[in-house]
Amino acid sequence: MRFAALAIFMVVSVPAAAIEEPLTLDLMPVPAQIELGANAFEIDAGFTVAIGGDGATDRLHRGVQRMLRRLSDRSALFFEPSTFLELEDREDAAMAVTAGRAGKLAVGEDESYRLTITEEGIRLQAATDIGALRGLETFLQLLTLDESGVTIPEVAIFDEPRFPWRGLMIDSSRHFMPVEVIKRNLDGMAAVKLNVLHWHLVDDQGFRVECLAFPKLHELGSDGDYYTRTQIREVIDYAADRGIRVVPEFDLPGHGTAWLTAYPELSSAPGPYEIERSWGIFDPTINPTIEKTYEFLDPFFAEMAELFDDDFIHIGGDENNGKHWLANPEITTYMEAHGYDEPLALQRYFNERVLEILTKYGKRMIGWDEIFQEGLPKNVVIQSWRGRESLFEAARLGYSGILSNGYYIDLIHPTDHHYLNDPLPDNSDLSAEEAARILGGEATMWAEYVSPETVDSRIWPRTAAIAERFWSPGTVRDVADMYRRLDHISLQLEELGLQHERNQPMMLRRLCRCRDIAPLEVLLGTIEPVKVYRRGQQRKHTQFSPLTRMVDASWPDAAPAREFRWTVARLLDGDLADPVDIASVRGALESWQANDTAIEEILRTSPALAEVKPMSAALTEVSTIGLEALGYLTSTDVARDADWLRPRIERLEAAREPHGQTELMIVDPVTVLVCAAAFPASLTEPGCQPEEEAMTGGEH
Amino acid sequence: MRFAALAIFMVVSVPAAAIEEPLTLDLMPVPAQIELGANAFEIDAGFTVAIGGDGATDRLHRGVQRMLRRLSDRSALFFEPSTFLELEDREDAAMAVTAGRAGKLAVGEDESYRLTITEEGIRLQAATDIGALRGLETFLQLLTLDESGVTIPEVAIFDEPRFPWRGLMIDSSRHFMPVEVIKRNLDGMAAVKLNVLHWHLVDDQGFRVECLAFPKLHELGSDGDYYTRTQIREVIDYAADRGIRVVPEFDLPGHGTAWLTAYPELSSAPGPYEIERSWGIFDPTINPTIEKTYEFLDPFFAEMAELFDDDFIHIGGDENNGKHWLANPEITTYMEAHGYDEPLALQRYFNERVLEILTKYGKRMIGWDEIFQEGLPKNVVIQSWRGRESLFEAARLGYSGILSNGYYIDLIHPTDHHYLNDPLPDNSDLSAEEAARILGGEATMWAEYVSPETVDSRIWPRTAAIAERFWSPGTVRDVADMYRRLDHISLQLEELGLQHERNQPMMLRRLCRCRDIAPLEVLLGTIEPVKVYRRGQQRKHTQFSPLTRMVDASWPDAAPAREFRWTVARLLDGDLADPVDIASVRGALESWQANDTAIEEILRTSPALAEVKPMSAALTEVSTIGLEALGYLTSTDVARDADWLRPRIERLEAAREPHGQTELMIVDPVTVLVCAAAFPASLTEPGCQPEEEAMTGGEH
Repeated sequence: MRFAALAIFMVVSVPAAAIEEPLTLDLMPVPAQIELGANAFEIDAGFTVAIGGDGATDRLHRGVQRMLRRLSDRSALFFEPSTFLELEDREDAAMAVTAGRAGKLAVGEDESYRLTITEEGIRLQAATDIGALRGLETFLQLLTLDESGVTIPEVAIFDEPRFPWRGLMIDSSRHFMPVEVIKRNLDGMAAVKLNVLHWHLVDDQGFRVECLAFPKLHELGSDGDYYTRTQIREVIDYAADRGIRVVPEFDLPGHGTAWLTAYPELSSAPGPYEIERSWGIFDPTINPTIEKTYEFLDPFFAEMAELFDDDFIHIGGDENNGKHWLANPEITTYMEAHGYDEPLALQRYFNERVLEILTKYGKRMIGWDEIFQEGLPKNVVIQSWRGRESLFEAARLGYSGILSNGYYIDLIHPTDHHYLNDPLPDNSDLSAEEAARILGGEATMWAEYVSPETVDSRIWPRTAAIAERFWSPGTVRDVADMYRRLDHISLQLEELGLQHERNQPMMLRRLCRCRDIAPLEVLLGTIEPVKVYRRGQQRKHTQFSPLTRMVDASWPDAAPAREFRWTVARLLDGDLADPVDIASVRGALESWQANDTAIEEILRTSPALAEVKPMSAALTEVSTIGLEALGYLTSTDVARDADWLRPRIERLEAAREPHGQTELMIVDPVTVLVCAAAFPASLTEPGCQPEEEAMTGGEH
Repeated sequence: MRFAALAIFMVVSVPAAAIEEPLTLDLMPVPAQIELGANAFEIDAGFTVAIGGDGATDRLHRGVQRMLRRLSDRSALFFEPSTFLELEDREDAAMAVTAGRAGKLAVGEDESYRLTITEEGIRLQAATDIGALRGLETFLQLLTLDESGVTIPEVAIFDEPRFPWRGLMIDSSRHFMPVEVIKRNLDGMAAVKLNVLHWHLVDDQGFRVECLAFPKLHELGSDGDYYTRTQIREVIDYAADRGIRVVPEFDLPGHGTAWLTAYPELSSAPGPYEIERSWGIFDPTINPTIEKTYEFLDPFFAEMAELFDDDFIHIGGDENNGKHWLANPEITTYMEAHGYDEPLALQRYFNERVLEILTKYGKRMIGWDEIFQEGLPKNVVIQSWRGRESLFEAARLGYSGILSNGYYIDLIHPTDHHYLNDPLPDNSDLSAEEAARILGGEATMWAEYVSPETVDSRIWPRTAAIAERFWSPGTVRDVADMYRRLDHISLQLEELGLQHERNQPMMLRRLCRCRDIAPLEVLLGTIEPVKVYRRGQQRKHTQFSPLTRMVDASWPDAAPAREFRWTVARLLDGDLADPVDIASVRGALESWQANDTAIEEILRTSPALAEVKPMSAALTEVSTIGLEALGYLTSTDVARDADWLRPRIERLEAAREPHGQTELMIVDPVTVLVCAAAFPASLTEPGCQPEEEAMTGGEH
């Protein structure tokens, strides 16, 4: 390699702490191996691409055309029409893309690629066209712009995924997501090298697929909001064009309200049923003890097996509470007769019957933890919402699985919470063979509290960090660098039509019916939606509830609050020696303190803004306390005592109270400042001791 | 009427100048009659709607459901599911909507409605469900919010359109617009009571409809970017649900490249043909002298007449330059044999043949000016891009027509330019009968310089003002009040998914790959895209050129520049007596003067930003000159002389030079300030005389 001499070989798999500066550039996911040169390749209006190899599929052609569109759009370079239209037989092309064969959309397909950029040109080589598509995304992330032009750094990358199953689950049942929402999210997935769309199409709140065999499913189960077969094919083709599999989920036998609204004769308790409009775990369950159920499911899955061409069908299987079974004497009699001592045993029987049907139609079965039982064929895959341990247990018994616990993006955890969650940590005690059964993971976008307008902001940018967890070496774990890159990637994702950045100001404008939203944005920099399942606990929501309030506009991981927390931590870590950090903390607190006055008029413009008045007041109060503490910390004054400390801790505690389903994210760091100002009196103050986060995991 | 006693009856058709404050509220279009009371109706979470009458169609039900969704989304009121689901037989409903019959999607259908709001409730009555849909939009525009809740003012409105044909033409040929773009624009159209989508589906640059009879049309003529028949039906149904007709245009015999790319045997000159990638008027033309042409067009229009259910089909007919006809000896021989002395005469023959086909399939013909000829049946409709006079001429001869001249929104004129353009001005000399033949007009969104990302910002909000021209009484012409309302309406349109407001910041973020875009926004407040056809004259564009530069992000009608112009005009009108206006002018100039420093670093981040460096420098220079002039104007110093004036006028003239296809919009008002500062010396300075705007109208 011509620049091997001048480049330091930096494999990012060296732990971040061990090297001075991990070579991540602005890439996400970070490639497996990367080597940087000193030069660059210049891209100008004469840029051209040639595609070659037996993997020069139509898919790859279209992928290159999309890449060229984005390259031209970002750089504003005016390429000739021929640049887009003539992709073969160009000897002189600036970029050569070769793929060895057409890739299959199947678990474990080769997605590796080699991207070599020198001053002379760009070479992208891959075993499959799918691998080449992955490399094109890396290429676009390397694009460098300034006033003098467009360049790509001299670099040699070899890349391949750590896990073969890297998914995003989108729930289209609780809130219907139109085709364009799915499509733009597929583009986002492709940009960060995810390769499975797990499409949650059926739940208590809606049956979202057209079904020819049993049309009442979509006619009565969807309020008219379902995907036609044509649309389903359109999505599958769109995904396939981006090297993404589509795995449909038809949740059974629990989460059964929509099925039973259409076909109550399959139920375990007398009907009639109606589409469920609220959130939670409900009783309606399909009756596994009657043959009619299987006579229904057989043609149903026959049709779906033909419509969806992936190897897998997901049968859900989660959260069947068994109530309707135990309340039905015929079912309990059946259970006794067959020796099923609990609902789960009966469900296992049901699963076996369903598996038989899926197998008949050439499909592999995947389901949530609850479907797992010994004796299942080994080609069944388990998706774990419960946790890594249940996945490992299955792996030890020979079953493959994917992890979703810890990737429940609907629970509004910060990005690093998901990022540091590894499907297969270094210290796992699995053998190599068992470890290979951990296929990857999936982020899950459950849709109780998202609409087509807000869903992108709950998926992105956090899912890009999860995608990195699934793709990059497990040693890539530098949280600060992840956030730095995520900020770039988030803006890049916008070019795909994703609305995660641009819809927030729009939502604020709608709330105030005004254009000067700056004070609202300041407030949103410090609050986040309540986490985990608190939103539903605080206020009853239905499928029709508005998702247009401040809680919906607020970020899951507000950057100003996060940066403030970090600066405070660093400041105290460094014994308050850094004047820049002191100024930064003071500046932030002062601007927050002043915001309540600036925002006052705006909060009067709507009832939906009035509900966050207490949050704005709390922000000012907490900032005032923080400034007082900082004043003492940075003066030569003596430390405060417990009498000073206690009332402030109490006021800070009070400021933790959520309003409008949002919570204030700067209470912790200000508490730290206050406790520091009152050191050592704070040593015995309970409010100055760190708390453990409770309630993780997910249910659906 | 119970509040008749306390309300002043204000019919908005009274000229604005004649009444103190025209009663327009925040409505757009302004209703025909409006009477305001002193009270209001309160809307709370218990709000319900009942639909009644023989016009209680499914369309009206869905319209009410969409209204409820928007009402809940704006107000953040939590309605019960039953509010959305149970719309019949509610005795106690807060809002009663009644429609007399199902409306027809046809020219002249009754769209009137009566909306009566008292403290006790809301009554919306209409002759047709389409009229009721119009009333629902007015209702939503009346929504009033503050911290204490949600109200609707006591009001009595009677409303009906001035013109029956109120259209927006969208060109899907030059740049393909995916279905979701069309859909969200249909929602925008419905919000401002437009009722015709004129869909320009075929042009030199692309054939965008699937055709079963002649599949090469979409296969070879579209790069794969065409609407399937299913999608076409989806759009028609979506439009029909909003009371909007869809009139397809198949441009013939000129603008023929895409047709002939697929079927060169229909051409007038030897092929082969390729999809045209650039903009202009091209030669490829269908051969009207061979029977094969009509053997082709007959089954083609048979299929399209069945697919599109509107009464009309638009055949284009514009801009056939006749070159290929005159160069083909067989065609010229044919012309001679039939006595056609010019291409237009031959085209008339062609039109007659096409008309015969359309009539056979039950359609009425509409086309651009060029199709007009005496002797055509009177049910043919003329669409005029040339001007009002050609429309009036046709009307005098008994032909109906619609006006598009003056509504070419692609030419980037300011809103008031279109707003004040009336299809039928007060002073027209048409008889009442002739005047009734002026059916209305259409805004035209030609797509040379718009992409799915930018098209909304070229259509909205300006088209809302055009919609008012077509709907409201002709006396509603207060430009300042129009802009005031337009600002509100623009934000409301966002709730429909339109991207006209939110995409601008996104485009700036893409350009700088940064979040602090404030200095770029300041610059964008003062520049606009070059007008009329200058963009293409300055730089060659193709279908593949990027539409992501500052010119694409900039507003057609930049509000800060407009307000500055107005303030300067008002200031000089008032003899510089208003200190608020002086401060406003000074403040604006100072912030612009300072922006070049703030923006410097940002303009270095990309070649696409570097191209507007001269614009930023010019902004600073012009502002500096303006501040100097303002200083003299507001001091007791003597007036400047010609020696002071001339070099400043020269520098201002130089600042008119466009860069990056943008022009500086504050040169005029600063010139006015400078000329005023040098009064009376400026009386003889040519640079101080007003100029006439040249080049209007449009070609396509």
